[in-house]
Amino acid sequence: MKLLLLLVLMAGIIPEVQGQQRKRARDYGVKIGVLPTGKYNAITDVPGVKVGHTTLIQGSNIRTGVTAILPHGGNIFQDKVPAAIYVGNGFGKLAGSTQVQELGNLETPIILTNTLSVGTAMNAVINYTLNQKGNQEVRSVNAVVGETNDGYLNDIRGRHVTENHVLESIKQAKTGEVTEGNVGAGTGTVCYGFKGGIGTASRKLPASVGGYTVGVLVQTNFGGVLQIDGVPVGEELEHYFMMQQIKDSADGSCMIVVATDAPLDARNLERLAKRALLGMGKTGGIAANGSGDYVIAFSTEPTIRVPYNSESSTQTATYLINDVMSPLFLATIEATEEAIINSLFAAETMNGTENHKTEALPIDKVVKILKKHNATKR
Amino acid sequence: MKLLLLLVLMAGIIPEVQGQQRKRARDYGVKIGVLPTGKYNAITDVPGVKVGHTTLIQGSNIRTGVTAILPHGGNIFQDKVPAAIYVGNGFGKLAGSTQVQELGNLETPIILTNTLSVGTAMNAVINYTLNQKGNQEVRSVNAVVGETNDGYLNDIRGRHVTENHVLESIKQAKTGEVTEGNVGAGTGTVCYGFKGGIGTASRKLPASVGGYTVGVLVQTNFGGVLQIDGVPVGEELEHYFMMQQIKDSADGSCMIVVATDAPLDARNLERLAKRALLGMGKTGGIAANGSGDYVIAFSTEPTIRVPYNSESSTQTATYLINDVMSPLFLATIEATEEAIINSLFAAETMNGTENHKTEALPIDKVVKILKKHNATKR
Amino acid sequence: MKLLLLLVLMAGIIPEVQGQQRKRARDYGVKIGVLPTGKYNAITDVPGVKVGHTTLIQGSNIRTGVTAILPHGGNIFQDKVPAAIYVGNGFGKLAGSTQVQELGNLETPIILTNTLSVGTAMNAVINYTLNQKGNQEVRSVNAVVGETNDGYLNDIRGRHVTENHVLESIKQAKTGEVTEGNVGAGTGTVCYGFKGGIGTASRKLPASVGGYTVGVLVQTNFGGVLQIDGVPVGEELEHYFMMQQIKDSADGSCMIVVATDAPLDARNLERLAKRALLGMGKTGGIAANGSGDYVIAFSTEPTIRVPYNSESSTQTATYLINDVMSPLFLATIEATEEAIINSLFAAETMNGTENHKTEALPIDKVVKILKKHNATKR
Amino acid sequence: MKLLLLLVLMAGIIPEVQGQQRKRARDYGVKIGVLPTGKYNAITDVPGVKVGHTTLIQGSNIRTGVTAILPHGGNIFQDKVPAAIYVGNGFGKLAGSTQVQELGNLETPIILTNTLSVGTAMNAVINYTLNQKGNQEVRSVNAVVGETNDGYLNDIRGRHVTENHVLESIKQAKTGEVTEGNVGAGTGTVCYGFKGGIGTASRKLPASVGGYTVGVLVQTNFGGVLQIDGVPVGEELEHYFMMQQIKDSADGSCMIVVATDAPLDARNLERLAKRALLGMGKTGGIAANGSGDYVIAFSTEPTIRVPYNSESSTQTATYLINDVMSPLFLATIEATEEAIINSLFAAETMNGTENHKTEALPIDKVVKILKKHNATKR
Repeated sequence: MKLLLLLVLMAGIIPEVQGQQRKRARDYGVKIGVLPTGKYNAITDVPGVKVGHTTLIQGSNIRTGVTAILPHGGNIFQDKVPAAIYVGNGFGKLAGSTQVQELGNLETPIILTNTLSVGTAMNAVINYTLNQKGNQEVRSVNAVVGETNDGYLNDIRGRHVTENHVLESIKQAKTGEVTEGNVGAGTGTVCYGFKGGIGTASRKLPASVGGYTVGVLVQTNFGGVLQIDGVPVGEELEHYFMMQQIKDSADGSCMIVVATDAPLDARNLERLAKRALLGMGKTGGIAANGSGDYVIAFSTEPTIRVPYNSESSTQTATYLINDVMSPLFLATIEATEEAIINSLFAAETMNGTENHKTEALPIDKVVKILKKHNATKR
Repeated sequence: MKLLLLLVLMAGIIPEVQGQQRKRARDYGVKIGVLPTGKYNAITDVPGVKVGHTTLIQGSNIRTGVTAILPHGGNIFQDKVPAAIYVGNGFGKLAGSTQVQELGNLETPIILTNTLSVGTAMNAVINYTLNQKGNQEVRSVNAVVGETNDGYLNDIRGRHVTENHVLESIKQAKTGEVTEGNVGAGTGTVCYGFKGGIGTASRKLPASVGGYTVGVLVQTNFGGVLQIDGVPVGEELEHYFMMQQIKDSADGSCMIVVATDAPLDARNLERLAKRALLGMGKTGGIAANGSGDYVIAFSTEPTIRVPYNSESSTQTATYLINDVMSPLFLATIEATEEAIINSLFAAETMNGTENHKTEALPIDKVVKILKKHNATKR
Repeated sequence: MKLLLLLVLMAGIIPEVQGQQRKRARDYGVKIGVLPTGKYNAITDVPGVKVGHTTLIQGSNIRTGVTAILPHGGNIFQDKVPAAIYVGNGFGKLAGSTQVQELGNLETPIILTNTLSVGTAMNAVINYTLNQKGNQEVRSVNAVVGETNDGYLNDIRGRHVTENHVLESIKQAKTGEVTEGNVGAGTGTVCYGFKGGIGTASRKLPASVGGYTVGVLVQTNFGGVLQIDGVPVGEELEHYFMMQQIKDSADGSCMIVVATDAPLDARNLERLAKRALLGMGKTGGIAANGSGDYVIAFSTEPTIRVPYNSESSTQTATYLINDVMSPLFLATIEATEEAIINSLFAAETMNGTENHKTEALPIDKVVKILKKHNATKR
Repeated sequence: MKLLLLLVLMAGIIPEVQGQQRKRARDYGVKIGVLPTGKYNAITDVPGVKVGHTTLIQGSNIRTGVTAILPHGGNIFQDKVPAAIYVGNGFGKLAGSTQVQELGNLETPIILTNTLSVGTAMNAVINYTLNQKGNQEVRSVNAVVGETNDGYLNDIRGRHVTENHVLESIKQAKTGEVTEGNVGAGTGTVCYGFKGGIGTASRKLPASVGGYTVGVLVQTNFGGVLQIDGVPVGEELEHYFMMQQIKDSADGSCMIVVATDAPLDARNLERLAKRALLGMGKTGGIAANGSGDYVIAFSTEPTIRVPYNSESSTQTATYLINDVMSPLFLATIEATEEAIINSLFAAETMNGTENHKTEALPIDKVVKILKKHNATKR
């Protein structure tokens, strides 16, 4: 154990504290949408969901990492969760999508990392699953691994993410507050030309429509014309896609993970996943040609889990009906929008490989712009 | 001809002037996005595209109509256009989708009408096509007919749209300015709790990225939390989905037609179509459970048309490559957003069946709200 | 009532007896697959399913009709059934597909007819539904109407199918034996260059895997290289797609309806639907470019029906799990294969419009070929 | 080089000669379909296509391997080929599917291996691509890696495939004859309860319809009710899915690679891919619940390749039109059917891990059955 920790530290894994200094969007009065947040305003407001980061900042060139999202604390392979995947724009390398779409469930932690590390992360997830207690007979593992390309700040061709880094992110995963910004899979990402990263947010429905929670976590690495709660921040900062002097390609990607405790079957989870893209669009994202924009949605409701090797040929379950989905759609859109904005507020200026530097969102200027547009609600 | 006109008038078809009194969003200083519009800021800015409306306002209960969009002025069946359809949310009755998706082309005018009139409109389009000069041998016609449900203001169960109404909308179709608001298929629609209708807008890319035009026409009949150019108008007006005292279901639908002169193949047209949903999302739409949100996209570029009964087994064509799609994506998002807002600005208060009444968007209040948020740019 | 009957007869609607004279494939010893059939070897072996035909044979040029399939005998709109649609090849005009795919249920009878009559059939289904007891408030109806193109034998441009013909097919629908061949929507179809038509078959799973029944009904109007229970009949008859002297295009279409009493959710019904194509492939079908090959699958299990305007926000249901689907897949493949072959055995030589004539499958020759290949099992 | 060879041999990589002793289906008079084969009756009949195997047979427990398919001999990343992927049944781990579907092209060799080695193969393909001459700036690689589960004969949990094995399969790839049976990714697979493996076949269209070649390569590891050229071999051998005494699950998977020199765009390649499933169905496959049945199709036509970092915003290309696709569909179906049968004829009895043993298809008995059914054409 101690040795592992030592190795981990030697490998440049940064403790999670990193990135915590900055305040979140709501702390500045940005109040996106009409629904209330959960306690942490994080994906972890959905009971049981855990998040873990491995952050790799080393030397002048390594700026990458891994983020793990666990739908529950048990053996996920034995107790699969209903899940769906929606492909917003498929210029990406998400592993595991077709099996989730076919069978409607998720059987591993979700791993986010960089584009060239998907294979390594799959290997780690397979190892993790094969070696988990109770899985001795398992011979097939559908590792779900998403990515964005941090190759501007990170020496991505160096492929510095190891299986241990991935396993560490799973091990680190915990409930409660989630660190945002330059952590985990968001360590080296760029969003709207500013430093992107990991962001999260949540919404809680009124009791009258079930009281369910929707939590979202994003890895932001994409472009467009930034809007914060509708305010044209990108234009005001004179920094946006298709602005004459800026050669920002708007490419990159956005990985979005949506968790809910609402009892949804795979079909309605797919519909939920699809709505997350609308939240991305509201921040000014355009799902550019070079973007890998994927949404993975799952339900944590314990009574609808899918047991491996069920003894019964049937499953009796209670699901929400189509007619009550709309509030959950709104919650997903709002939480996705806010998670993306949170990633920008949390991420700090970073220097990286080849002397590249990406500035953080200039909070002071942004707050002024928001005030000018009467968009701060404190 | 005269007789027909008489019949048309007797049938309660309203001349197109209707709905023109109100100004468009831009006239109030609303300037959505960063790209310039085309000349008319309408789908007809795409050369050759024609739009025609048949508006049915009769007695206290008939509030419906038909809108026809023609990709070009020739024989569309003989000179099909590359096309794609994207299903945002499929609670709708769009006819013709699978053939467009399979073959990648469109062979009829696009007709928009009300939910229960799709069959009638299909029949009309089939008649139109069978009887067109040069189509004597045609035995298969893929009529593309979209709809939204105007059953709140219109006696939809009365099924007042006839084949003649549909044929009339095709005949009326013309280039140039497009009437918006309570016309054609938008006559009886409701959007964000206010009177919706037909809206249109366009964007023109800079010459440096090809100078292409994207034009959008929408039939708005959906809900959510209205935002105008990012300003939370729905909240400020205290009228939005999930507001406690409002029982607005956010259901309804949004039909979106995207035209471009960019030479796109069906695959890239499908990607373009998908982006239109982001524009809808930016106005606050959530693609609610009960929404039929569909996008039909086509290219008018003459050299890539698909001839019926081609003598050659191959077609040589010049298409844009994937890498240059992003500006067109942005144009589509912006034009869709503005077309929806235009539909709201144009539509006037309407009384309808069962003494239902839907108020127009309160422009004065809205302009004040926009000013409060510094969102009027004149 | 009497007047209606008179009108019906005047309209050339042929009593259902038509086409019954010929024996079915099994009567000649053709035994497709390894699973036993249901009692009638028909889609109606699935309890509650009803089939009705309206056959239009009039003068020398009208050879068309309508077939209605009802998932149950009640009010389908109020008691929707879980359903799915799979598009094998989308060169067709199937109405209603996107809503079934989005919501996972079917709310009307399924109507099959000819290509240019889909609009008329939609109108009829809408009328039928609006006027059904209990549906006074209904303002949205998703009519599911499939078609194939009978334009070789039938004056399809004359559009002889009326709404009454469609309503009549619904009214005629009954459980028990199903007439095959030149009836209903199969009246004028052509399959593998021979006379096609309506065919049906069923499979019953052993009790050890649930004892469920899968029933299939097809409207056959497609081409390829005919195989009957694996025997290369097309080759032996020297009549097949791509044979040098034959200009058979293999175009046309195959509509496939799959019913089961197995309690399947929409996702697994879609998987079931997809397997039907394999059954079509086994008869030598190639899903040619010009083919509209669609599968509509539904479950009749009463406890999983989807009530309209449910008072509850949830539904508790017992579904089969993924792991036990394979036997149902096999049943679907076998029943589809046999239904297609049955349509060929049942259909008789027909003269039609423009002096076109399509010969029936030459049963005597076929039986000889089957015997030569040791494929008759009696 | 020598050292590498030594390492390779030490690692238990078996020279390709393995498996060649048995004759192919056609050598026994099995003549599937109506179209002629190419010269080698192999995927390599499509000019430029190369296939390489790494076969791992070591000790009593390692029975696995890697097969690489290269669309051309150049730098695939710089000269991408139009491509499509069709998911027959998605219980599998195919990497790279969403990007191929989005962009319509393939930028790496296709790798087939076992289920738990997809991550390793991705890493190898990424290494291969990053290190290829001219790719120094590449930071994103969409590795396409398919798999089936050889865990019955192979110690799959031991994960014996290394990156070197994958690189070796790419290096070994060559045009001309393709070794079938227990080689490469087919080393440890089981099909219809008999030993499966790699199989290949091709079809050449008549000059009158273009003279194009379609080549197919399969990795067979699935079940059902085996038919060989329509003959019910599974039944006659009393060995098939759902036979009472046999507990064959029909699970497993079938990876199918389709190559053609026909100039097809991605949309028509997807349609082609879809037809391959019909070929699988004709051998008795049912796409069982546990099956990962995927088809990857690409065109080798040089003039339609997709250059990386094109300087032009457009591409001018000559593609086949929809109307001439049907012969290619038939060719794909036939070649897939024969490739699967060839895999069974080529594969030899194998002992593997945990003393498992899978018998080869009993050729003598099979030939007798084929003769009984008059299905040998010599």
